[in-house]
Amino acid sequence: MMSSETYTVSGMTCGHCVGTVKTEVGKISGVTAVDVDLATGKVTVTANEPVEEARVRDAVEEAGYELTSA
Amino acid sequence: MMSSETYTVSGMTCGHCVGTVKTEVGKISGVTAVDVDLATGKVTVTANEPVEEARVRDAVEEAGYELTSA
Repeated sequence: MMSSETYTVSGMTCGHCVGTVKTEVGKISGVTAVDVDLATGKVTVTANEPVEEARVRDAVEEAGYELTSA
Repeated sequence: MMSSETYTVSGMTCGHCVGTVKTEVGKISGVTAVDVDLATGKVTVTANEPVEEARVRDAVEEAGYELTSA
């Protein structure tokens, strides 16, 4: 089963920030794709199983940014 | 002889950008230190010999930013 959720992340200012978020969120078990729109801060996480929001939040914070809405 | 010159670079938005500029400018022959103030865009290049502005400009562009004044 594929699962896809979109979150909003604040604090990303450039392509490096996007790359950092993609890397950290991509480490979550089951995640197969992470798409980021820098202009809007929207981060779409696709996985082969549902991913707990807390795991996404932790990964985003590990990258140095803030998950502002789910 | 130590040489120190300060340039202004536009386009840096975060710490990753600062790191990229430091890395690229730091590769220039003779450069011993690169200090960057993200808020102002000021990049101070210290070297053990005078560094041509063109070399700094090339390094800044290689990093993906623009040298706007020397």
